[in-house]
Amino acid sequence: MAGLVLRRVIPRPDHLSLHEGFLIVSLSWVIMSFLGALPFMLSGFIPSLTDAFFETMSGFTTTGASILEDIEALPKSLLVWRSMTHWLGGMGVIALAVAIFPSLGVGAGQLFKAEAPGPIKEKISPRISETAKILWIIYLLFTVTETLFLMIGGLDFFESLCTTFGSLATGGFSPRNASIAAYPSPYIHYTVIFFMFIAGANFNLHYFFLKGRWTAYGRDSEFRFYGGVVLLASGLIVLIRLMGGKAFSEDLFRSSLFQTVSLLTTTGFISEDYEHWPLATHIILLFLMFIGGCASSTGGAIKNIRILIVLKQSLFGLKKLFHPHGVFPIKIGNKPIPDTTVSNVMGFVILYMLIFGFSVLVMAWLGLEFDTSIGAVAACLGNIGPGIGTVGPVDNYAHLPGVGKWILSILMMVGRLEIYTVLVIFLPRFWW
Amino acid sequence: MAGLVLRRVIPRPDHLSLHEGFLIVSLSWVIMSFLGALPFMLSGFIPSLTDAFFETMSGFTTTGASILEDIEALPKSLLVWRSMTHWLGGMGVIALAVAIFPSLGVGAGQLFKAEAPGPIKEKISPRISETAKILWIIYLLFTVTETLFLMIGGLDFFESLCTTFGSLATGGFSPRNASIAAYPSPYIHYTVIFFMFIAGANFNLHYFFLKGRWTAYGRDSEFRFYGGVVLLASGLIVLIRLMGGKAFSEDLFRSSLFQTVSLLTTTGFISEDYEHWPLATHIILLFLMFIGGCASSTGGAIKNIRILIVLKQSLFGLKKLFHPHGVFPIKIGNKPIPDTTVSNVMGFVILYMLIFGFSVLVMAWLGLEFDTSIGAVAACLGNIGPGIGTVGPVDNYAHLPGVGKWILSILMMVGRLEIYTVLVIFLPRFWW
Repeated sequence: MAGLVLRRVIPRPDHLSLHEGFLIVSLSWVIMSFLGALPFMLSGFIPSLTDAFFETMSGFTTTGASILEDIEALPKSLLVWRSMTHWLGGMGVIALAVAIFPSLGVGAGQLFKAEAPGPIKEKISPRISETAKILWIIYLLFTVTETLFLMIGGLDFFESLCTTFGSLATGGFSPRNASIAAYPSPYIHYTVIFFMFIAGANFNLHYFFLKGRWTAYGRDSEFRFYGGVVLLASGLIVLIRLMGGKAFSEDLFRSSLFQTVSLLTTTGFISEDYEHWPLATHIILLFLMFIGGCASSTGGAIKNIRILIVLKQSLFGLKKLFHPHGVFPIKIGNKPIPDTTVSNVMGFVILYMLIFGFSVLVMAWLGLEFDTSIGAVAACLGNIGPGIGTVGPVDNYAHLPGVGKWILSILMMVGRLEIYTVLVIFLPRFWW
Repeated sequence: MAGLVLRRVIPRPDHLSLHEGFLIVSLSWVIMSFLGALPFMLSGFIPSLTDAFFETMSGFTTTGASILEDIEALPKSLLVWRSMTHWLGGMGVIALAVAIFPSLGVGAGQLFKAEAPGPIKEKISPRISETAKILWIIYLLFTVTETLFLMIGGLDFFESLCTTFGSLATGGFSPRNASIAAYPSPYIHYTVIFFMFIAGANFNLHYFFLKGRWTAYGRDSEFRFYGGVVLLASGLIVLIRLMGGKAFSEDLFRSSLFQTVSLLTTTGFISEDYEHWPLATHIILLFLMFIGGCASSTGGAIKNIRILIVLKQSLFGLKKLFHPHGVFPIKIGNKPIPDTTVSNVMGFVILYMLIFGFSVLVMAWLGLEFDTSIGAVAACLGNIGPGIGTVGPVDNYAHLPGVGKWILSILMMVGRLEIYTVLVIFLPRFWW
């Protein structure tokens, strides 16, 4: 069936246009989500197509938003499949698609362009399939490592694996109802924090680092920005919670850091119910949900590099005001960014905000509360998972109206495929 | 005192640098707000400096946010002064500053650049003071006309004048507690709608129209967009209210149109308590609060022309994706907009959103509810007045903490002076 659809949309398999590439990518996600929903439906644990599709799309897009009210009621086999959708989605599907499509001879260059998460900065290997394979090996390496680390901390193989899938894909599905809060061990928390942070960083940097370039991380502007956001946000959250009357404790520090890294990297694991924290911390967490991971990571949302470019450009507006004839190119790591890239990035960010705003309107129209609408849209478009309001850390998406679930499913895909890939399908031929 | 400060910051009265121009403009607003607060304080009706400063800054910036719990308790003299701050602020202060500064011989060009609301597109007259005088005469003309129209509708001279000041400055201060809802006459409502719409449009267009260029409005892209926003938003609001179970009536149509025009133009008059409308209408109204008036109007917020440029650029990102080497300049009215202008505009919009987001965080920190924080910041930064939450259409700002009032006062100024004018003062010399 899927093959039939694909064959119809690929008229010339030896020459794939960019538009056709985008179409295939988007269609694949939809088809895979329908196929991936079958185990949930056939087993009877998620009988509704709407719910099963939502859950699977949430898995493949590494969102982690769930409609399950009692996760632990599912058999382990289903929970492994559920977490596996993350792992496949996060980077697996991308790497697989990049590695497999070339052998089909249908021009994987466009596909890589469409599926690679974020703007690629430094090419590792000229051959796209080579690059994909390398990133896949690194991904696999991290998977084995984190699983082992979690098992050392006392989790069984099943829970270690599911948690690893959730963290490295920046997905957030956990086999436990209480998410990571189910494990009291600080060691587990710190391990998950570390691997979420790793998963949200540019995988090219990991490659360079593993190859012995120890300065790879420190020399990367985006990585420094990313690290800075973690320090600043978690510091502010600790401060606000202390001012809110809490006494300082390792627990307070750890949970603040955990939620910062979890929501920034768009993972969405929960180590403590942040809905009980002061409101100002929610606004900070909401900010983080828009920033997201780094380029070429498994993280979603706008991405740090884009935020960095946009911040620089907004401030440079000032400089241009005083030197109207001066030329001040935005620089990232001493390299000037071309003007068109800068405007494209700003266009992307504004489009992201517009889609966000418009979707919040639609969700409110469907009867959701103000904060729930904002939280649900930010969490799904940014591929995070839990939001604020009635889709918060200890809630789920089960109670949303069916139409709302379908819209949020589409938003997950739109966010994951960097908007344009999906949007272009709905635009008239005029555009491409 | 003010003169002393001014003399200190103007070392060379014959050659005013842009930075000095900005400094003078910003300082003038602060000093005028302190001086303008004196009548409120000395009369004892607003004894607190914080409150009196907030009310006056709100007046001069044509915001219309009020800390008065019972407006009608004030003597008419104070209420006229209160509305007069709008009239002076909205365009009066700008026009006066442009018309008077040249006679001081301190280079008004920079000041006009700093104070003119929004990017000037078509110059009327090469001499800045001439332009200011022309716009001021048009402003005066509209003031007389609206006052007469309202008096014909049965309002007395005092109420007509105050309401006129409030509408033409897109301010929103009313001498009545219930704002425009105090007048049951549909004629009054439609008159106010018309003049708010006029006040939110580019005054250069009014000039061209009055000179006999009947097509002036229709040929202006920004005006068409502005009109389109009014039609679309009021249509959607009517639709949502009908779907919410209301029967169609002239009253429902009128109040939907009234609030659309009132919040879009950043006036902030109220003809019906929209907090009782479905939540989705609030989101639409919140959208409008970011769009604002046209360039060279008395309206605030981001401005239609900027929104239009940003929308075009966001969609053009797609086109560039498919034609990486193609050149697609953004066109406004068949005229291509230079790339630097486009990036500056996008930088402005993003900076606006960042200041919005950061201020919401601070307000939440101060203990405000989520929706109130969003509503208050959007309403003050955009110079609207009433927001949503506990600063909604039938509420006021009296209950906010003092620090919050000062921050919102600064936001009013930041919004009114197009961010950069104020921001530059706080940046190190390096920038200018």
